[in-house]
Amino acid sequence: MRTDIAILGFGVVGAGTAKVLEMNKEEIARRTGTEIYVKHILDLRDFPDSPFADRVTHNADEVFGDKDIKIAVETIGGARVAYEYTKRALSAGITVVTSNKELVSTHGVELLKIAKENGCQYLFEAAVGGGIPIIRPLYRCLAANKVVRIAGIVNGTTNYILTQMKDNGISLEEAVSQAQQNGYAEANPAADLEGIDAQRKLSILSTIALDGTYVAPSSIDAKGITEITTDDIEFAKKIGCELKLIALFENKEGSKPVAYVAPTYVSRSSLIASVEGVFNAIMVEGNALGESLFYGQGAGAVPTASAVCGDILEAAAGDKMPDSRLWEDKGEAIEAYDDVKASIVVRAPEIPVTAFSEYDSVRLDGAVIVNDIAHKDIDRLIAGIPGAKWMHYLK
Amino acid sequence: MRTDIAILGFGVVGAGTAKVLEMNKEEIARRTGTEIYVKHILDLRDFPDSPFADRVTHNADEVFGDKDIKIAVETIGGARVAYEYTKRALSAGITVVTSNKELVSTHGVELLKIAKENGCQYLFEAAVGGGIPIIRPLYRCLAANKVVRIAGIVNGTTNYILTQMKDNGISLEEAVSQAQQNGYAEANPAADLEGIDAQRKLSILSTIALDGTYVAPSSIDAKGITEITTDDIEFAKKIGCELKLIALFENKEGSKPVAYVAPTYVSRSSLIASVEGVFNAIMVEGNALGESLFYGQGAGAVPTASAVCGDILEAAAGDKMPDSRLWEDKGEAIEAYDDVKASIVVRAPEIPVTAFSEYDSVRLDGAVIVNDIAHKDIDRLIAGIPGAKWMHYLK
Repeated sequence: MRTDIAILGFGVVGAGTAKVLEMNKEEIARRTGTEIYVKHILDLRDFPDSPFADRVTHNADEVFGDKDIKIAVETIGGARVAYEYTKRALSAGITVVTSNKELVSTHGVELLKIAKENGCQYLFEAAVGGGIPIIRPLYRCLAANKVVRIAGIVNGTTNYILTQMKDNGISLEEAVSQAQQNGYAEANPAADLEGIDAQRKLSILSTIALDGTYVAPSSIDAKGITEITTDDIEFAKKIGCELKLIALFENKEGSKPVAYVAPTYVSRSSLIASVEGVFNAIMVEGNALGESLFYGQGAGAVPTASAVCGDILEAAAGDKMPDSRLWEDKGEAIEAYDDVKASIVVRAPEIPVTAFSEYDSVRLDGAVIVNDIAHKDIDRLIAGIPGAKWMHYLK
Repeated sequence: MRTDIAILGFGVVGAGTAKVLEMNKEEIARRTGTEIYVKHILDLRDFPDSPFADRVTHNADEVFGDKDIKIAVETIGGARVAYEYTKRALSAGITVVTSNKELVSTHGVELLKIAKENGCQYLFEAAVGGGIPIIRPLYRCLAANKVVRIAGIVNGTTNYILTQMKDNGISLEEAVSQAQQNGYAEANPAADLEGIDAQRKLSILSTIALDGTYVAPSSIDAKGITEITTDDIEFAKKIGCELKLIALFENKEGSKPVAYVAPTYVSRSSLIASVEGVFNAIMVEGNALGESLFYGQGAGAVPTASAVCGDILEAAAGDKMPDSRLWEDKGEAIEAYDDVKASIVVRAPEIPVTAFSEYDSVRLDGAVIVNDIAHKDIDRLIAGIPGAKWMHYLK
């Protein structure tokens, strides 16, 4: 048997997907009983040196009009052309597999609905955590859990930069340019540095954790690492922490769900603190499972393609999309950031003994951990402490 | 809709399963569109104080003769009664979900075949790694990968004991009795301490990694931690390692696959080295994915029940078992232990400069890391070095 697929956008991940399918074709055929055949590659460019050069077309009609195509891999990126092509494919009953977190997080509600209506699927394992299996485990393995918390390092670029700053004592600017030289940051790294990429991924994870109640990226407060100094990093060592950009989701009994992205002092007792360089790690806490961590390469052509291929094989098996995979936009799904109660670290040359007396707090050398403090109260409370600075804290 | 299930054996995991199904019944109903109803609980004992007391029966015929039962949860353990009941259920077309690594690793070939022949499934996510999703990610998410290596801490009891020895400087005997007091080790902890539990789990993981080519537990060399001393643990610190009981599978290009269980010095640069206490962690390396780690609670009633419930929900969805899930016993699937080439640490008061000159080796303070040395050659090579001791090494 043969399953014909099309790849839309032959960039890093698209080409990686073709490569992985070729590299492991024997394993794939044995496991699925079908050969996955890349019939069309839709791109504006030509790739004369690629072994797939003969499959490249610039004509979208040729791809979407081909009745043999059962699966389209959307690796264009962005939410414009990718959005149009994804709608067109799904409307034609073609299952779409993607690594495009921007598109999934922005238009997931609509695209999943179109997929359902047309008897196909919209799959996006590769959109979060690169090659790390996380979307499917959340849906499948944790099906009998209520997800009470997700805490993740979901952006490899910023984790690489923070690791370099720590290990080599260099400034943010130096670390960014080093990351660019090594291919770990884009020429314009704003989406990574400002936490926008993490915000999109957290939108997807939170929505799944809430059984499809859509958490829009725009509703998630995201601070990036643009203001992080070598001082902030040095201070982490002093209090037994590592400074990480954390995407946090919480759904405690009796409160509204919470989701935000912020640079965070992570206690070294947590395995997440040990995640270095471009790696990603996502800690999921289920009410039955307890804590579970998923760790691996969060980016890169071949690891991400590995996740794309996992979805292709699932799609090739022809499973129907269950109703429970639909997303629904019910408006405000999460608590307003100002009202969210967080754990923070406040540091200052001198902190008055009475400073946070009404809070559950722990005194450290030159700092205080303050628990359950509403974001809106933080500035007021530290205003009276000369030189005070605060950051989120994760135990 | 309602799906009726039976629980065979109402011990720790069986009762945990009933509890998780009850605790998260709303989530489960919403996600699967079906209510999972525990209709029968088969056990020799009565449980007058359990909320499920009215479902308990001592009569197997009542359970297996009930045409409503679609799924049986086998949480009896062992390979005798559990074996008989599993065969009986599968032969009647009832899908069996289990946490029983002994049974899966010993009779998996036969039981999967019976399941296939009778149009049902035999699912065992909970047999390895407790609550950690590992079996399904291996099958599903890594479907497009060749698995080249698995290195896991798969036994929480021994990891707890090793952690206690390290943290508190106590002997193996003391640590074992502490583990027993805290409920982390059984009254007879031999299966854990001697590496037999890890051997069974590695048998399952290796078989899946080899696409169903059965790796019998008896073919896997397993050393436990029974001879580990506080000295061994102290020495780990000196060379920047942690001593862990590692279940290792390797499938390198051009060699026969390798599988064994052994106490191993793990370099602190590996995330596995940071896994403490009763936690489990399994590092999987795919040829596309690269390294990925799955971490979480490897035992305990409710976490393990979480994995059992994940399988129940998959079974309730009524998927057919793909042919590729069958196992086949082709005889010697792995290299004989004596011929396996390993990385080891040799330590001695004095190691001659010429000692391992024909090997790729790295000198440390009071020790040498020797790579690619066949197990059968180790004893001969260290025989001439007074006071020499060796252990496996993992980078």
